[in-house]
Amino acid sequence: MAIADEDQRFMRRALALAEQGRGFVEPNPMVGCVIVKDDQIIGEGFHEKFGGPHAEINAIANAGGASLEGSTVYVSLEPCCHHGKTPPCTDALLKIKPSRVVIAMQDPFPKVQGSGIQLLVQSGIQVSVGACGDEAARLNAPFAKVQQRSKPWVIAKWAMTLDGKLATSSGSSKWISGEAARAEVHRIRGFCDGVMVGSGTVKLDDPLLTTRPPGPRTAARIIFDSQATLSPSSRLIETIADAPVVVAVSSTARSERLERLAHAGCKLILCEGNDHAERMENFLCQLGAQGMTNVLVEGGSQLLGLLWDTRQIDEVYTFIAPKIAGGTDAISPIGGRGVLNMEQATNLVRTDLQSYQETICLHGFTDFSL
Amino acid sequence: MAIADEDQRFMRRALALAEQGRGFVEPNPMVGCVIVKDDQIIGEGFHEKFGGPHAEINAIANAGGASLEGSTVYVSLEPCCHHGKTPPCTDALLKIKPSRVVIAMQDPFPKVQGSGIQLLVQSGIQVSVGACGDEAARLNAPFAKVQQRSKPWVIAKWAMTLDGKLATSSGSSKWISGEAARAEVHRIRGFCDGVMVGSGTVKLDDPLLTTRPPGPRTAARIIFDSQATLSPSSRLIETIADAPVVVAVSSTARSERLERLAHAGCKLILCEGNDHAERMENFLCQLGAQGMTNVLVEGGSQLLGLLWDTRQIDEVYTFIAPKIAGGTDAISPIGGRGVLNMEQATNLVRTDLQSYQETICLHGFTDFSL
Repeated sequence: MAIADEDQRFMRRALALAEQGRGFVEPNPMVGCVIVKDDQIIGEGFHEKFGGPHAEINAIANAGGASLEGSTVYVSLEPCCHHGKTPPCTDALLKIKPSRVVIAMQDPFPKVQGSGIQLLVQSGIQVSVGACGDEAARLNAPFAKVQQRSKPWVIAKWAMTLDGKLATSSGSSKWISGEAARAEVHRIRGFCDGVMVGSGTVKLDDPLLTTRPPGPRTAARIIFDSQATLSPSSRLIETIADAPVVVAVSSTARSERLERLAHAGCKLILCEGNDHAERMENFLCQLGAQGMTNVLVEGGSQLLGLLWDTRQIDEVYTFIAPKIAGGTDAISPIGGRGVLNMEQATNLVRTDLQSYQETICLHGFTDFSL
Repeated sequence: MAIADEDQRFMRRALALAEQGRGFVEPNPMVGCVIVKDDQIIGEGFHEKFGGPHAEINAIANAGGASLEGSTVYVSLEPCCHHGKTPPCTDALLKIKPSRVVIAMQDPFPKVQGSGIQLLVQSGIQVSVGACGDEAARLNAPFAKVQQRSKPWVIAKWAMTLDGKLATSSGSSKWISGEAARAEVHRIRGFCDGVMVGSGTVKLDDPLLTTRPPGPRTAARIIFDSQATLSPSSRLIETIADAPVVVAVSSTARSERLERLAHAGCKLILCEGNDHAERMENFLCQLGAQGMTNVLVEGGSQLLGLLWDTRQIDEVYTFIAPKIAGGTDAISPIGGRGVLNMEQATNLVRTDLQSYQETICLHGFTDFSL
């Protein structure tokens, strides 16, 4: 069945509304809703904040009491039909007596998954599913991943020279990209639940990993640090009041180190597994269980290599500065084993290119991410 | 003195004409000429082919016998005043009795360098120098470099993955960039006098290094191969009838290897010096002396590192494919020593960005190149 142009048009509006919730609603999905009568939008809204009313409720309120009977409701995600933090949206929808509900995609959340649609259909409402379904799936891909695979969406970011260097042979990397590009990185951090680096990067760069200026979320600063080597005099711990510091450790870490970090206010997460790959898998599942939806990984080479080899990366931001460092021993962005044949390299999909002053940014998704 | 807008306008036309000679005129400079009377172009031309008439002569001929007395002649490079392959252009200009000659830049060629301008001035013609001078200098930067520093213009080209890999740890690199990007590389080859690679790349890739389809020039295939290890069964030698194979060797190469390559039809160039850097300097000077204006270096990592460390590279084409290979042991585009501090990295200048299907190309110039 061809999806009507006007369904797509109104659903795009619902998706644009949904997008405005980014960073505010997680671990909930972003959802937008548009109510249409006689080809006119008479109410619209979106899920604005975690714990606040859902998109449908905001759209109904926005209609200001006008009769919505016989209207068409466009909603970018299947309405919920369970009692969560708020009453079920299906109840609210049934109350306004729409003649039709258009839904972009089913809710991947196990408690809903089709039952909201079923309930509407059983109540005699005409339901269409799939308008702008791909766009809706992309918008909430991180939400869907947590629901389906119990792990947060992993975004990798690195800045490199035009000859592919993350840092020189001495580890120097300040600064590869320009100010505008670094501002963009802070903007991305502001939508994430966590910013992760490896212990090597902390030793080398002593980074703050805070978001400046702050965004809608305060990203936890996450260190993958099996041996709990993070120094109590690091800037991360000095600024522990600004944003949580989460340290992923293994059971082989020395207990006095663990105590020292716990005492300093770090949140320690014990990662089970026999090697880095298993511990990372276990760690990501724990982050997902704690409600993290998006984690930004900013390096270094070893951590990105580990994540790459184990296909944990969903989305990539590569900042490329038009400068050349040279050096056989300089550091490449993604370490690890890598592929043996270039034919096995992974193509990014849905790429786009942005410029931040002289630095360019190629952004895309791994082809196994969705 | 501000340069009049119309001078810039006509000179830009002369430069656009000059550009059409690219690949056809080297080792001569590209030159365009426009003759203007009453604000109208009444003749224009450019140096079309090495050994053929100069731009001024073609522009005069293009005027079709109209009186050029009192005209303004725009020429993108100082007219020659010596007898070379053709009679001096200053003679031809004096004959048409222009009232003014506008010149974008002095000829860097030692036999001319200002004496053409002087001769015109002494003949009572008003001469202006400098309109679009920067553009003219860029257009003929390779010509100027050979004249002034006795070495060809060195263009480096590489294709890398989004994580900065030239090849995987096993040396596999086919193919990083897409077809459209590879076609662009062949287009660039077609304007060059030589395409250079290191001996390691020949062993690994057994490349043809021919230009397909052919361009205006047939680039010699140049191997920097101190020990003369090029195999007689390589595709380079199998196709030696298609384009010359030049092998840069050191005096320490075994004589039977040298004889074998000479016998196979290679042109051997003995490079003097105590190390690779000295031998490369010596080699480039020999290529310049042989009339090479542009040499394209296509890798590998070691050769590009050597050239980079010794500041031999003038222009850079970096093709970046949106794919990721990973691997600590994968090969980075520019080897060598490199810089220790990222602050010492060299910024490319006058960069531009092109897309060839999914592959992007960042092109620019080293800040010491001009």
